[in-house]
Amino acid sequence: MAQGFSSCAQGHTQHLSVQLMGSEMESGTQGTPVLPEHLRNKHLDTLVEEHFFHIEDATLNAKADLGTLLGDVKVVLMGGAADRAEKIAVRLSTAFGWPVQPLGMRERYSLFKVGPVISMNHGIGSPSLMIILHELTKVLQRAGCKDVTYIRIGTSGGIGVTPGTIVVTSEGVNCELESVYEMTVLGKRRRLPAVFDKDLAEELAAVGKRLDFPVLVAKTMATDDYYEEQGRLDGAVDCQYSESEKMEWIQKVCEYGVRNMEMEGTALAAFCNRTGVRAAMVCAALLDRTKGDQTPDQASPEQMGQWVSNSQELVVEWLRGKFTPLTTAA
Amino acid sequence: MAQGFSSCAQGHTQHLSVQLMGSEMESGTQGTPVLPEHLRNKHLDTLVEEHFFHIEDATLNAKADLGTLLGDVKVVLMGGAADRAEKIAVRLSTAFGWPVQPLGMRERYSLFKVGPVISMNHGIGSPSLMIILHELTKVLQRAGCKDVTYIRIGTSGGIGVTPGTIVVTSEGVNCELESVYEMTVLGKRRRLPAVFDKDLAEELAAVGKRLDFPVLVAKTMATDDYYEEQGRLDGAVDCQYSESEKMEWIQKVCEYGVRNMEMEGTALAAFCNRTGVRAAMVCAALLDRTKGDQTPDQASPEQMGQWVSNSQELVVEWLRGKFTPLTTAA
Repeated sequence: MAQGFSSCAQGHTQHLSVQLMGSEMESGTQGTPVLPEHLRNKHLDTLVEEHFFHIEDATLNAKADLGTLLGDVKVVLMGGAADRAEKIAVRLSTAFGWPVQPLGMRERYSLFKVGPVISMNHGIGSPSLMIILHELTKVLQRAGCKDVTYIRIGTSGGIGVTPGTIVVTSEGVNCELESVYEMTVLGKRRRLPAVFDKDLAEELAAVGKRLDFPVLVAKTMATDDYYEEQGRLDGAVDCQYSESEKMEWIQKVCEYGVRNMEMEGTALAAFCNRTGVRAAMVCAALLDRTKGDQTPDQASPEQMGQWVSNSQELVVEWLRGKFTPLTTAA
Repeated sequence: MAQGFSSCAQGHTQHLSVQLMGSEMESGTQGTPVLPEHLRNKHLDTLVEEHFFHIEDATLNAKADLGTLLGDVKVVLMGGAADRAEKIAVRLSTAFGWPVQPLGMRERYSLFKVGPVISMNHGIGSPSLMIILHELTKVLQRAGCKDVTYIRIGTSGGIGVTPGTIVVTSEGVNCELESVYEMTVLGKRRRLPAVFDKDLAEELAAVGKRLDFPVLVAKTMATDDYYEEQGRLDGAVDCQYSESEKMEWIQKVCEYGVRNMEMEGTALAAFCNRTGVRAAMVCAALLDRTKGDQTPDQASPEQMGQWVSNSQELVVEWLRGKFTPLTTAA
């Protein structure tokens, strides 16, 4: 793992005075908490001690001074892989002059604070994402954070788009083309709406257009499996459908307005709808599934690397509209 | 990350002559392939090049000599976290004298070959597990492996058992108490049986009893969420159920014979039923959910560490019945 943060990762409790631009992200007592009072889990008040089981360590726990450590956090960037979370943290550090502070236990999730941003990984799939969403949100609530935005930056399979297109998600849809995230709670199915913040999606897409990236706002399908739920033909086991049946389904998905597939979008939207956190998802499409299942047939590793970088750059540029780099603010 | 393998990780293509005991794991042309002919995905034959997207690198790919690299693999041990996969690899190396060889790209999954065993992580949740099952199974099929057994070693919340009990799973059940793993393929729901190999479960439990560990064979519930799908009260968001409603559900789950909850069991069983791979799941129960939701209220970190170690030791002891340590075989 790259150690790009090592020279500036000494102080876990170092507080940063971040230069904010614009009114929507002003700090202070104003603003919307991560969990508004009426959406909070009141059971937490009955606990002897709150826990953040999958991330807590000696520095990140309910007894720590989370307000000093994290009170200025305004944006959480998230992606699948731990090393990508670290690369984004280093990229932000370079762009804004913010030091990178690793946070918490790194056994299952890797989190880094970079100025007013947390960059972290969520693993693969909605179950893994949901754990870190619950635990990070409890942490940020305890830290007293206000007006926080969650943005997932990911990769995806495109549907009827040129590889390299960046899809900003308008709504997550499940494998049955419903804008719903389904849970089974105490044995009963619950269906939660999976729509993203419309204004934020348009705002991010506008930044992408300004950068001359191919970008669009569209529906994204989230699946709980990379192979058969995505209609791929290259899993290990006999999938019991043909190339033509697959293409017919992909075509139907495309006609419904879905422009990419990934594995976390409905869960992210549903969680953020419940908490009131503004959320967005920005995914580079690495291939066009209407043309095939194999990324290497449609793009070189260099092209894929560039598209991943573009989706990150779009979000960094959006952040430039919110925060003044320390180097130029001095 | 610990570098316990560094002194013996030089030769990615080193072939080990492993000493086998008993008839069921003999190598050679006999035995059942990982994917019997009638269960193979015939679409793979039409690919220009097969890919193992989330794990492949310069050494682990379809063009590599996978037979030489991995042809002797008989057992795959898997767990959630990357560092635990590495610790188990080092533990096996110590017990059997086998060198540890890291395998493939380590961005999302960490795999280690240790003699005839692969130790790897699968991340959290069924979607993450399913990816590595598909890709590893394709790799082992290409390597010509025969008579392979997959064992997940994990942690779990116990249901009506003393913390520290090791549950060997008889069948995975979903949140609606059905022994089923559900997928939505080309828009249609598919329900796959989630029963584990009965003989293997009993064999593993017998080893646990011989070691004087508290162990039982029972049903395991697999959920797609750690908080609300498990009826926990300590998630971030208002869960809309009470302590008494939760306890009523936990009691119902207990009466159905479920003795623990985790997040991958139904998917593992369903995948292995489809491929014919013998599979088992061995999970330490870190708390008793009929007594509360908070592990730290029911056990010290030292106790939890011991219980995790016990579940690993059970599997190591089972392996001792199959393989002769290199040190004593000389």
